[in-house]
Amino acid sequence: MRLPDRVEIVEVGPRDGLQNEATHIPTPDKVALIAALAAAGLRRFEATSFVSPKWIPRLADAEAVLAALPHDTGAVYGGLIANERGYDRALAAGVREVSVVVSATEGHCRANLNRPIAEVLSGFAPIAARGRADGIRVRANISTVFGCPFDGVPPMAQVISVIERIAATGIDNITLSDTIGVANPRQVGAIFAEATAAFPRVTFAAHFHDTRGLALANVVAALDAGVRIFDSSIGGLGGCPYAPSAAGNVATEDLAFGLAEMGIATGIDLDRLLDAAELVERLVAHPLRARIDRRLLGVGGAVSSR
Amino acid sequence: MRLPDRVEIVEVGPRDGLQNEATHIPTPDKVALIAALAAAGLRRFEATSFVSPKWIPRLADAEAVLAALPHDTGAVYGGLIANERGYDRALAAGVREVSVVVSATEGHCRANLNRPIAEVLSGFAPIAARGRADGIRVRANISTVFGCPFDGVPPMAQVISVIERIAATGIDNITLSDTIGVANPRQVGAIFAEATAAFPRVTFAAHFHDTRGLALANVVAALDAGVRIFDSSIGGLGGCPYAPSAAGNVATEDLAFGLAEMGIATGIDLDRLLDAAELVERLVAHPLRARIDRRLLGVGGAVSSR
Repeated sequence: MRLPDRVEIVEVGPRDGLQNEATHIPTPDKVALIAALAAAGLRRFEATSFVSPKWIPRLADAEAVLAALPHDTGAVYGGLIANERGYDRALAAGVREVSVVVSATEGHCRANLNRPIAEVLSGFAPIAARGRADGIRVRANISTVFGCPFDGVPPMAQVISVIERIAATGIDNITLSDTIGVANPRQVGAIFAEATAAFPRVTFAAHFHDTRGLALANVVAALDAGVRIFDSSIGGLGGCPYAPSAAGNVATEDLAFGLAEMGIATGIDLDRLLDAAELVERLVAHPLRARIDRRLLGVGGAVSSR
Repeated sequence: MRLPDRVEIVEVGPRDGLQNEATHIPTPDKVALIAALAAAGLRRFEATSFVSPKWIPRLADAEAVLAALPHDTGAVYGGLIANERGYDRALAAGVREVSVVVSATEGHCRANLNRPIAEVLSGFAPIAARGRADGIRVRANISTVFGCPFDGVPPMAQVISVIERIAATGIDNITLSDTIGVANPRQVGAIFAEATAAFPRVTFAAHFHDTRGLALANVVAALDAGVRIFDSSIGGLGGCPYAPSAAGNVATEDLAFGLAEMGIATGIDLDRLLDAAELVERLVAHPLRARIDRRLLGVGGAVSSR
């Protein structure tokens, strides 16, 4: 296996996680959560969404969150956008990174974005151009790469075609997402190997959900295929409204712990990360299902498997 | 990654799992459980233990279990033994396979077997010789290869030395066990790569616990290193009396599911396997913590990620 010395974790819980919660989280609590995560060493965030509050009411306070975040931590706060209006808002709010989203499958694209893939992609070029001009990094997130609740598993050629059309806009940070948690390690290895070979100038990231306990196995397969950037969500927050039994994202604490055990640096202080995990569990007011807790860290600490 | 087309699963729940349960399981229920697992397609079992009932009272009914098991399923029923008296009992009970156990660390060996490693190993040669004469396969299980609650992580040379002394007795089926669930994929890859290179005539198996959610990631690393036989336990039964926070073995249903998703055949019918998982949960009368249930299988069935 080809394992690296270091990987980067993008914390997506404040956006991908909180948007799905039944509980309204007040702005100061969101800020406290992101600050706690930054204090634990996380350096990249999908911090909020600049999509219309009509669609994502839980994140209607995007500007207020950005304004209140600590800006002396070295962390890069990004935001999800759906169009140029969102880009305008994100830029004005001071983000350094924006994410755009499309699906690998028409069924999920229509359900999630109410438009076909081609139409969504046609909106990426002007955002990519503005990002280059403004020095804002643009990430593109492709949903349902490994399986879709409507269309099943997209053929490899379809995934590659979506990547190709994104790369043609000049966007060179692309995340392949297992939106409903159906990926398996063989498939993950095959798709990332094909994608990285076909698009050597693109930096690929992986976004896994832990619906069926395979997220960390998929991480290992993605590491072996050369992936060095992973999305995760504190406490395993998140889900997919179109796949009710889909669990949340892989938990940041599980990912950071697993990587640390393999001797792969992330810059994260696990003890402080667990403080943040306890905070988010209080905020959402329901139990979260990460695999790691302090008791288990203790087992690791006792035997130090490195 | 080097992934095979087929792997073999050894079901150890009836021995490694039930010996740790607070509840006494009546003999007919044990037989029903093993029969249900055999009906689901499992073909190798650590079905019971022929260690003195003084040490493992929950498995005092070894002979009665063996006598009642269905012998028309093609399944091979094995038993754990500690010495030649155990071998005699196992042979008389009609097992086809026996397992002997030692630890990679002195601390665990003394705690678990009350003797130093060298003394335990000295008992293996006569059992190996009798196994060859009788046509009984002898498996050796090395505990705490990846970490020990008393001695930490054993040096690679110590693990290799224990394997070497076992192989010298003629035993060529050796299981490397992560007894307390502290292994990580990098370590798993490294140890199995070293062991398989050093002992090409030995067939290695892997035994993982899912204490910290890394079991399936470790399975992927072991597959990549050439391992083709895995222990697992229905419902994730099991634990380690010397590491109270250690979770059980990787659940057979999680392992079989993960392998099936990767297109790796095990001969197991997942639906019938979940019947057995539900049975064992009723028998032990407490919730088990496998990651897969029928609801999640449904997600997989809907999108068929192969």
